[in-house]
Amino acid sequence: MTQLLPAALLRAIDELGRLPGVGARTAERYAYYLLRGDQHIAQKLARTIAELHSGVKTCPVTFALIDASEDISKLYSDPSRNKQLVAVVEEPLDIIALERTGQYDGTYHVLGGAISPIDGVGPEQLHIPELLARLKADQVEEIIIATNASVEGESTALFLQRFIQENGYEVKMTRLARGIPVGVDLEYADQITLSHALEGRRIL
Amino acid sequence: MTQLLPAALLRAIDELGRLPGVGARTAERYAYYLLRGDQHIAQKLARTIAELHSGVKTCPVTFALIDASEDISKLYSDPSRNKQLVAVVEEPLDIIALERTGQYDGTYHVLGGAISPIDGVGPEQLHIPELLARLKADQVEEIIIATNASVEGESTALFLQRFIQENGYEVKMTRLARGIPVGVDLEYADQITLSHALEGRRIL
Repeated sequence: MTQLLPAALLRAIDELGRLPGVGARTAERYAYYLLRGDQHIAQKLARTIAELHSGVKTCPVTFALIDASEDISKLYSDPSRNKQLVAVVEEPLDIIALERTGQYDGTYHVLGGAISPIDGVGPEQLHIPELLARLKADQVEEIIIATNASVEGESTALFLQRFIQENGYEVKMTRLARGIPVGVDLEYADQITLSHALEGRRIL
Repeated sequence: MTQLLPAALLRAIDELGRLPGVGARTAERYAYYLLRGDQHIAQKLARTIAELHSGVKTCPVTFALIDASEDISKLYSDPSRNKQLVAVVEEPLDIIALERTGQYDGTYHVLGGAISPIDGVGPEQLHIPELLARLKADQVEEIIIATNASVEGESTALFLQRFIQENGYEVKMTRLARGIPVGVDLEYADQITLSHALEGRRIL
């Protein structure tokens, strides 16, 4: 079969197809959209992608994503944030989810993933030593282990809890409540979630 | 709320969110994937997107997408293709779908859309005059109207059929068969498809 599409279009489809969850058809649709639209839309997208790495760096204390021009995360340096309260999350984007609640005034610590033997991620790949350093330096009183509610997230939470205790740190450790999400009918809640909701029931 | 993400990341999320069917969460996921991965993956994607418009042009005869270095679509200039048979499609990518069948040796004509009053697309926006010119120049014997099986596609097919007749061109016009897709159970076929399948039934 002869080559049916222009080489430049095929290259764009190939590269767009590397994005997570994007198959060949979706990549074709994206590329064709960019090709059909005004040239400056494609140019602007290209420029923002090209400047992504140079414009972003990782905070050396919290491992949140920060502007390349910043030294430290504003969510840490802001004096109104309680440094003695640390929410430990897996990924930088998890911070946004917690910030959107408007209910949290502590600081964050991004682990950079979760323990997952299948993916070859052990505790040594995560920012755990840096967390221990913060416990001392900031006299942390409470760690909220806000890893995902997945097997990996739970293992990581358990590991962290033990590791911090074994290293002789006395700090209150909490975990986000598991229960029935707002707006979900009881009959649609899965067994495990429902067990958690029972266990964590509160006095009215 | 202070700005939670680096400006460069926000810009990339914004631009990725313009892709068709991509919401804020998906755009965040794409941007974070590019940021987390090796820098040259992002650079390569940026380059291919930036070079998309300059590397691709439209064939002046068939309106298929061709390399900027080409004069005319290979699917037209190839002497083994039957120029007296023309498949009329809405979009350039429809050509790939037909070519993948390996059953077609005619040429193509891309309309550049379908008639859709809601979207403000009338016949005058489509490459219909150029199709009429080909009918004469190539002594076309059959036009396969291969527009989509949507309301717009059907309207366009009907319009084309009448327009060509009214302009005094005597040419056989056909439409792709409608029926039950291979592998689909009768009980899952919708009413209209099933009606088409009944109408178009074949003697065994």
